[in-house]
Amino acid sequence: MPEPIIFYDIPGNAAKDKAWSPNTWKTRFNLNIKGIPYKTVWVEYPDIAPLSKQIGAGPTATTPDGSGSPHYTLPAIYDPNTRTAVAESLAIARYLDRTYPSSGPTLIPKETDALHMAFVQAFRDAYFPDAGQLFLPASCAQLNPASEAYFRRTREAWYNAKLEDFAPFGSEKRAQHWKGVEKALHTIKEWLEADGTEKMYVMGDSISFADIVVVSHLVWMKLVLGPASEEWTDVMKWDGGHWARFMAEFEKWDIVDVGTEFEG
Amino acid sequence: MPEPIIFYDIPGNAAKDKAWSPNTWKTRFNLNIKGIPYKTVWVEYPDIAPLSKQIGAGPTATTPDGSGSPHYTLPAIYDPNTRTAVAESLAIARYLDRTYPSSGPTLIPKETDALHMAFVQAFRDAYFPDAGQLFLPASCAQLNPASEAYFRRTREAWYNAKLEDFAPFGSEKRAQHWKGVEKALHTIKEWLEADGTEKMYVMGDSISFADIVVVSHLVWMKLVLGPASEEWTDVMKWDGGHWARFMAEFEKWDIVDVGTEFEG
Repeated sequence: MPEPIIFYDIPGNAAKDKAWSPNTWKTRFNLNIKGIPYKTVWVEYPDIAPLSKQIGAGPTATTPDGSGSPHYTLPAIYDPNTRTAVAESLAIARYLDRTYPSSGPTLIPKETDALHMAFVQAFRDAYFPDAGQLFLPASCAQLNPASEAYFRRTREAWYNAKLEDFAPFGSEKRAQHWKGVEKALHTIKEWLEADGTEKMYVMGDSISFADIVVVSHLVWMKLVLGPASEEWTDVMKWDGGHWARFMAEFEKWDIVDVGTEFEG
Repeated sequence: MPEPIIFYDIPGNAAKDKAWSPNTWKTRFNLNIKGIPYKTVWVEYPDIAPLSKQIGAGPTATTPDGSGSPHYTLPAIYDPNTRTAVAESLAIARYLDRTYPSSGPTLIPKETDALHMAFVQAFRDAYFPDAGQLFLPASCAQLNPASEAYFRRTREAWYNAKLEDFAPFGSEKRAQHWKGVEKALHTIKEWLEADGTEKMYVMGDSISFADIVVVSHLVWMKLVLGPASEEWTDVMKWDGGHWARFMAEFEKWDIVDVGTEFEG
């Protein structure tokens, strides 16, 4: 049995077990589905860059402000068995498939790697322009003070708008963004049916990373909106209840290790 | 041996063998790679809708003008062996995979159908906003008079601009659109390398429909720009000559059956 992998996540207060971020949920689902032992370490936003440098996880992008500065993000993992740090959920998925090939299903079958890259991009193109407007403000609101200030400052600079103006409750803008998110999920549903068979998973019978991308965003929406909210209740009715059934398939892997705090 | 499939394409004068359209090239490559016998019938734009209704091929979309009118497009095929008409290149690929499973490679392996849908969308999102501006005017210029008038009228209405103003030679606008197309192809190249292996084909060793989408657009660019043009010469240098090597892989299937004319 290998030593547990260290999984770095960002704490919030949307749920009692802290987890909320769609990107880190991808890695949590990945680890849970594969049944790989891990321990969670919770990292506030201002500590992500120093932590990444400390463990040797590279930047995953440049900052969206166009300055070209390196941008460090979570999820990241550190695997003590191989002394390897990996950041970014797709790279982590690839690493786990390769390093632990006998632990659970392969989530990115080798011949589908480039197709997965395209899926992630197409999902983002369809979903994020509207989803970001709706769910970033709600994400900010449930962070701890240190992260909240950092998240607000960076996101308001990148989007050049106050979070409160992204999609105010009751506004026409908010209604339009909801239509966009509904359309994006409907597009995914159309992809699942395009060949005339009704599929639960992107690759048919077996779960792949593409499904984890979608379910992690649904979990995000549920947690930051509130599972009892009217908006979330509506989502669960879309596409004839398909997304509720889809999420139910992942319930057994919807488990959070509450872990420990990062001491910077 | 089955009877030849009837393959409907749009004639142009960019090449001596008439073929130029990226969408119909997808089906031609598909048929050539599978080695399925076919005959080409050339259809001018104004005849596409009547032809489609005549053979029983449904509309593939609604018109981009937002009116919700049915939009009939080529490629379409009529298979006399099964008395079936199919329109739209991806649907045709699926039909050929299923109907002639022992004719050449499966181009959309079943478990990758939804991933292929995502690939087609992601490629279009990245490529078409710039490519359309550059290559639709050049496409129009090489059509026969009946198609030329129809193409100009419809495209200028959808884009609300004169074709001559899309991307005039020597303009800053044109330079920007070229940067966009270069970036789009570079993104595909990044997908091909994302897992650390340098792949020629999207699925690695074997050709799939995703590759046919990309090569068909490259063939379009080459034909409407002119194979000797400075712009095309530049494209062949992008990504260290990768796209030239990629096209060379398809040379043996770059064959046009000059066929017959459609008598409406």
